[in-house]
Amino acid sequence: MGIKSKRRDLALIYSEEPASAASLFTQNVVCAEPVKLSRKHIKNGKAQAIVVNSGNANACTGDEGWRGAVAMAEKTSELLDIPMEDVLVASTGLIGEPFPTEKVLEGIEECAHKLSDREMAGSLTANAILTTDTFAKEGFTDFEIEGTTINMAGIAKGSGMIHPNMGTMLAFITCDLAIDSDLLDEALRDAVDRTFNMITVDGDTSTNDMVSVMCNGMAGNEKITTKNEKYERFYANLEKLCRHLAKLIVSDGEGATKLVEYRVKQAKSEEDARKIIRTVSDSSLVKTAIFGTDPNWGRIMGAAGRAGVDFDPDKVDLYIGSDEDHSVQILKDGQPLDDRRSEVKKEMQASNITVILDLNEGTAESVGWGSDFSYEYVRINAEYTT
Amino acid sequence: MGIKSKRRDLALIYSEEPASAASLFTQNVVCAEPVKLSRKHIKNGKAQAIVVNSGNANACTGDEGWRGAVAMAEKTSELLDIPMEDVLVASTGLIGEPFPTEKVLEGIEECAHKLSDREMAGSLTANAILTTDTFAKEGFTDFEIEGTTINMAGIAKGSGMIHPNMGTMLAFITCDLAIDSDLLDEALRDAVDRTFNMITVDGDTSTNDMVSVMCNGMAGNEKITTKNEKYERFYANLEKLCRHLAKLIVSDGEGATKLVEYRVKQAKSEEDARKIIRTVSDSSLVKTAIFGTDPNWGRIMGAAGRAGVDFDPDKVDLYIGSDEDHSVQILKDGQPLDDRRSEVKKEMQASNITVILDLNEGTAESVGWGSDFSYEYVRINAEYTT
Repeated sequence: MGIKSKRRDLALIYSEEPASAASLFTQNVVCAEPVKLSRKHIKNGKAQAIVVNSGNANACTGDEGWRGAVAMAEKTSELLDIPMEDVLVASTGLIGEPFPTEKVLEGIEECAHKLSDREMAGSLTANAILTTDTFAKEGFTDFEIEGTTINMAGIAKGSGMIHPNMGTMLAFITCDLAIDSDLLDEALRDAVDRTFNMITVDGDTSTNDMVSVMCNGMAGNEKITTKNEKYERFYANLEKLCRHLAKLIVSDGEGATKLVEYRVKQAKSEEDARKIIRTVSDSSLVKTAIFGTDPNWGRIMGAAGRAGVDFDPDKVDLYIGSDEDHSVQILKDGQPLDDRRSEVKKEMQASNITVILDLNEGTAESVGWGSDFSYEYVRINAEYTT
Repeated sequence: MGIKSKRRDLALIYSEEPASAASLFTQNVVCAEPVKLSRKHIKNGKAQAIVVNSGNANACTGDEGWRGAVAMAEKTSELLDIPMEDVLVASTGLIGEPFPTEKVLEGIEECAHKLSDREMAGSLTANAILTTDTFAKEGFTDFEIEGTTINMAGIAKGSGMIHPNMGTMLAFITCDLAIDSDLLDEALRDAVDRTFNMITVDGDTSTNDMVSVMCNGMAGNEKITTKNEKYERFYANLEKLCRHLAKLIVSDGEGATKLVEYRVKQAKSEEDARKIIRTVSDSSLVKTAIFGTDPNWGRIMGAAGRAGVDFDPDKVDLYIGSDEDHSVQILKDGQPLDDRRSEVKKEMQASNITVILDLNEGTAESVGWGSDFSYEYVRINAEYTT
C-alpha cells in the first residue's frame, strides 16, 4: 500500500497517494511544537507522510523548536514532492533540550533516499518497523470489503522505548481503504477512547502523544461515505488493531513485569466504568501490590471509591484471577467472603492478571489495561537525563 | 485543657467538658465503618471523646465491621459516662480484614482507666502522643485572646506509620477556646483546604481519612460567635498548626527522602493554582526525578499542563531551588534559559526543595507539599499484607 521507511532515530512513513487522514493529539496544555504543527496540518483531513524523530521531544523549546518542527515538514515536503500541509510531524524524547534541527534534517534526507519501491503492504510495513527500532510494536490485519482485500498496519512507540520518554505514546496506522476523512476521524476517536485511552503506565500524559491514521484508497474499494455495514467492518478492525498496539505498549511499560486487564461490569454508564478503570489501574498502591503479588484487594476498592463515580459499595462483587475463567471471588454484595488471600496470591503469580469489578447497578461495561509498579520503574525514571 | 491518653495500638482523646467540634472525612465513596458512624455523630457540632485504633481499617468489613465501630463508641461512652453521640471513632490499618471487636474493646477499657487527671494542655497532649506511638506527629501553639491564653495542640498519623496504611491520614486537634461550632466547622474546612488537602504522598485517598477539632471552652474566653478579629487570630493559629502537621506527614511519607514545597504564583484563581500543585506534586515522573536528583524539569511542565487548568505555557517562569531565596530560574516566558541542568542538580541535592511556577496571568497563589518516590516506597507497598 505504499508504506516505506527510515533509520535508527528517525522514521518516515509515506503514502504513494494522498490519503484521508485523522489524528488525535495530547490534551496537555503544554504541548510539543510538532503537535502544534500537526494539529494545523490535519485540519484538511488529508496527509501523505508522517515524519517522526526520537531523542528530543521538541517541547518547551520556544521559538527555535517551532522553527525546527516547520523545517522537518518543509524538508519532507520538498524531498517527497508533496504539499507541506500533508506532512504530519511527531517527536519523542527529552523535554526542554535545544532541538537539533540540522541533524534531524540530515536524517530526513537520508531516509527519503532509502524509501523502497516495493508495493506489498505487510512486508513493507514490517520492514519499516524493524528498521525504525528494535523495540517497536507492530500489528497487521486484513479483511474483505465487497471482495476487495483491505490491508491495515500499525506501529506504535510506547514508554520504555529507545529512551524512556515520559510515557510518550505514538501510534501510526496505515490502511489502503477508501474512506471519507470525517468518518475516519470519528472511527479513530471511538477506537482510541476504547483502547489507547484505556491504558496507563504511570498516569502522566505526555506533551507529545499522537495517534494518526492514513487511508489512501489504493485497495480500490468504493469509497465509504456513510456509517454502513462496511464502515462497521472497518471500525471493528481498526479497534482490534488499536487494542493490540495498546496492550503491547502496556506490556513494555517502564519496569513492567505484569499486564493487568481491568473489567468493570454492570455500571450505570460506560464513562463511569472507564473512570473507575483509569483510577484503579493508575493507583500506585494497586500497582505496587500487583508487583509484589500482594493480595491486598482493599486497595482496589479504595481506588475505585475515589474515581469520582457514584456507586454503592454494598453491591460490588470483586474478582481477581489469572484470567476471566480462573478468578477468585473476594467480595459479594460488598461483603468480604471468607479469607481468600492465599488463593488470590496464587492467581497473582501469573504474568497476566484480570481484575473484575461488578457494580451490579446498570448495563454498561468497559475494559482497560495497566502494568505494575516495580523497582525498575523508579530506577529508569530517577536516572533519565543524568 | 483536659486532654488525656492511651496505649500502643489505641488512642483515646477525652475532653473534660463537652466541646464544640468539627470533623472532615474522606471523600472516597468506599469509606470505613468508623467514618460512617463519626459522620452521624458530628452532626450536632459536639464531641467529647475520640477513640482511634490502628492495625485494622474497619473498611470493606460488611455488617460485622459496622457493629464493631458502634461497639467502640458505646464502650467509650459507658466508660467515660458521656453521650454515645459525642464519641468520634477512627480506624487505620489493613482494609477488608475481619474487625477484631473484642480485642479493641479490651484496649478501650484499659485506656480509659489510665486517663490521668493532669490539667496542663501541652504536656498532657505531648504525653498522649508519645504513648500513642513513637512515630506520631505532634504540634502545639498558644496565643492570647483578650488577655486569655488559648492552648491548641494536635496529633497526626500519616502514611508510613505503625504499618504503612494506605496513606491514611488522621489528625486530631484540641483547643480550650470557646467558639461556636458552625464557625469552627468553617475554620476547619478553610484550614484543611490550605494544608492537609495540599499534601500528597501517593495520590491515593484513603477510605479512612479524618481530621477533627474539639474546642472545649475551658480557657474561659467569651465565646466567639462571629467572624471577628478574635476568630481571625484563632484561624491563623489553626492553619499554622495544620500546616505543621501536614508537612510532618509528608516528611514521613512512605519511602520519602525529600520534602518538596510547590508554589504556584500569579494564577487566575487559587483553585487553578491548587490543581496544578496537586497534579505536579503527585506525578510519579516528577517524584522519581526528585528522588534521583535528576534536573528533568520538563516533567514538571508536562504535569502542570495536564492539571485541567487553562494557562499559557509561553508566559511561565519556572524556578527550582533548595529554598525560595536560593533557586535557579529555568524558564522565562516559557522559553528555556541556557542550560541550567547542572546548577539545578546541585540545588536538588538538598533534602528540602522548592519548585516555583509563576504563571504571570493573575494574582492568586497557592502552596503545597509532596515527597519523592523511592525504591523504598515500592518495597514497603509491595510487601504490605504478606
